Amino acid sequence: MRSDVQHFKCEIKDGIATIALDRPERKNPLTFDSYAELRDWFRDLHYDDEVKAVVFTSNGGNFSSGGDVHDIIGPLTKMTMKQLLTFTRMTGDLVKSMQNCGKPIIAAVDGICAGAGAIIAMASDLRVATPEAKVAFLFNRVGLAGCDMGACAILPRLIGQGRAAELLYLGRAMSAEEGHAWGFFNSVVSADELDATAQKMAARIASGPNFANMMTKTMLAQEWSMGLDQAIEAEAQAQAICMQGQDFHRAYHAFVAKEKPVFEGD
Amino acid sequence: MRSDVQHFKCEIKDGIATIALDRPERKNPLTFDSYAELRDWFRDLHYDDEVKAVVFTSNGGNFSSGGDVHDIIGPLTKMTMKQLLTFTRMTGDLVKSMQNCGKPIIAAVDGICAGAGAIIAMASDLRVATPEAKVAFLFNRVGLAGCDMGACAILPRLIGQGRAAELLYLGRAMSAEEGHAWGFFNSVVSADELDATAQKMAARIASGPNFANMMTKTMLAQEWSMGLDQAIEAEAQAQAICMQGQDFHRAYHAFVAKEKPVFEGD
Amino acid sequence: MRSDVQHFKCEIKDGIATIALDRPERKNPLTFDSYAELRDWFRDLHYDDEVKAVVFTSNGGNFSSGGDVHDIIGPLTKMTMKQLLTFTRMTGDLVKSMQNCGKPIIAAVDGICAGAGAIIAMASDLRVATPEAKVAFLFNRVGLAGCDMGACAILPRLIGQGRAAELLYLGRAMSAEEGHAWGFFNSVVSADELDATAQKMAARIASGPNFANMMTKTMLAQEWSMGLDQAIEAEAQAQAICMQGQDFHRAYHAFVAKEKPVFEGD
Repeated sequence: MRSDVQHFKCEIKDGIATIALDRPERKNPLTFDSYAELRDWFRDLHYDDEVKAVVFTSNGGNFSSGGDVHDIIGPLTKMTMKQLLTFTRMTGDLVKSMQNCGKPIIAAVDGICAGAGAIIAMASDLRVATPEAKVAFLFNRVGLAGCDMGACAILPRLIGQGRAAELLYLGRAMSAEEGHAWGFFNSVVSADELDATAQKMAARIASGPNFANMMTKTMLAQEWSMGLDQAIEAEAQAQAICMQGQDFHRAYHAFVAKEKPVFEGD
Repeated sequence: MRSDVQHFKCEIKDGIATIALDRPERKNPLTFDSYAELRDWFRDLHYDDEVKAVVFTSNGGNFSSGGDVHDIIGPLTKMTMKQLLTFTRMTGDLVKSMQNCGKPIIAAVDGICAGAGAIIAMASDLRVATPEAKVAFLFNRVGLAGCDMGACAILPRLIGQGRAAELLYLGRAMSAEEGHAWGFFNSVVSADELDATAQKMAARIASGPNFANMMTKTMLAQEWSMGLDQAIEAEAQAQAICMQGQDFHRAYHAFVAKEKPVFEGD
Repeated sequence: MRSDVQHFKCEIKDGIATIALDRPERKNPLTFDSYAELRDWFRDLHYDDEVKAVVFTSNGGNFSSGGDVHDIIGPLTKMTMKQLLTFTRMTGDLVKSMQNCGKPIIAAVDGICAGAGAIIAMASDLRVATPEAKVAFLFNRVGLAGCDMGACAILPRLIGQGRAAELLYLGRAMSAEEGHAWGFFNSVVSADELDATAQKMAARIASGPNFANMMTKTMLAQEWSMGLDQAIEAEAQAQAICMQGQDFHRAYHAFVAKEKPVFEGD
């Protein structure tokens, strides 16, 4: 998997890719270039076997301030509809590629996490925060709708339809405490524990079973709008596939031998 | 927008319509007439540009006791199936017209909020309560099912499937404290702050961007049962429309000029 | 309704069926036989009028440890894909038959509630726990995916998408306290109150209206992936059916006579 990226930071070690936006002096805004490169990187990840989990972390005390006002919002105000749709589809494609990459993504959120930054945290699988995290879906503060990159579909499933409506209509920030109580954040830890907590969680996931984790991720997305009966049949098929996997056999034999299973991802 | 209604109270001021049922001596039950007039009023609202937000408030210390036993339940027990379906579709059409009116609705709930009254609160976009609010989906106490006016679809998305099941099977009241902890109520304030809190929230929303708020409301409903990929594409289209709106341009120019944007709703 | 079952305990009294797995010395694991008999029992329940509510309770301080390692997991590692799919469909059919039995199911959870045991609690309609309850969707600890028997569809609707993802990816236990705060458990009571609490809840439900309760259960499942407008029309039809029921008339006449209604289930 490529770690030689241009528009964000990326380090790959022990099966964990740790990435972050990298303009800390401006609270890590997104640009056209970083959107596109992130989208492509997550698409490539779908075909990769080396990386087993991703940590999307903060940088310099902030996660991301979202689309840069000068680099993105200014140009958008001058675009044709065709160009605008190309842009909104590119941002949506980033969420699709995150959902479709096959590896659990942990967002480690410190400080400002706004606009498209909030979307990236939302589109991750798990979220850890510091008490200083402020998550703002502030689209309507810049004259836009809350329906950005899947927010009207995903945010209600994370925190409930009424709380999501409040954040999207008022554009106000959600505190770390609210985010934890509402199920947005899986845990809140102090800033100096943030990276260690996210890395530990990633290491637990990276220890496998990774083929099964990929299937869990696939089905959580796949069953989003299925009927109950269809979901149950889909899981019967997906789990039967996993039961022919070697990691299932490894776990059984380890159990019988009273050992800890070592998963290999097939 | 009409404020000369017969079967409920309605005042329109500064882009905010404040409405309430108006038989406080009987805790504001619904009648055939008020159902029909509310349905028609919210339908008309879809085509209106003056009203930007709605507050559905309490009256005399209560929100609504639901369908009136003498005016509604008695007659229903004598109806043919064709007449019954006409009635249940009328009540369901009230929820559809609330969902489809294009303006965020804030329910301000004090005291009794039962049956169809609970549904109206549920079908609103945001909810503020007093500590005295009691919300009861009490359909099964009158021999009916919990599937009334969308409750089996909407309530689980607000408070979770298990808590919704409890309220619908037991018919018990949800307290203000539970409602807040579970995400039904966005906030709880004392009775003398209720109207001011709801009006302030409505004023914030009415300050715009109103075309974008309409689009947020549309997409929250539209994406209810879409797949994830479909929702993301739908949002790419909806947000591209908003990006060609003048309110987006106004926000950008205000930001560059270090001013507060003044939205005009186009 | 049959109570002469072989592979689990079953007692039927006053319209309430109380069932439990019955190998307390091994924390009540499931076997091929108990899976199949439970599936068939819940299927038969669909056509039964005697039982109005089900309590699925714990036994010897534990709910269930899930699929037995020796009786189930060992044999699964030797099966063909055709045999595996037959197995995963049988387990899924247990959830389908619980969803489709027409009677509310209350899980009373003490101690270990793991794997398929956690699924049975999840697939019930209401859940009561003791402080000692530990619910673990531990599939990935045995090399499998979280998509087992509907977990990726149902668990997110109970506790939110982010918390469900954590439990499924990490395989860690959810405590009773977490389960209560997150909406998995409707209440938590001490171990010596568990059965009385569940029975009281079941008695309340069994007192009716039982045809209407069946319709509530049907529609909660039926509307799982419907659009909002479709759900509202579906409820208009379902509730119109209930309004021609005698229990609705009984409730009205009892109200007028200032008596408590006695429901008879038609």
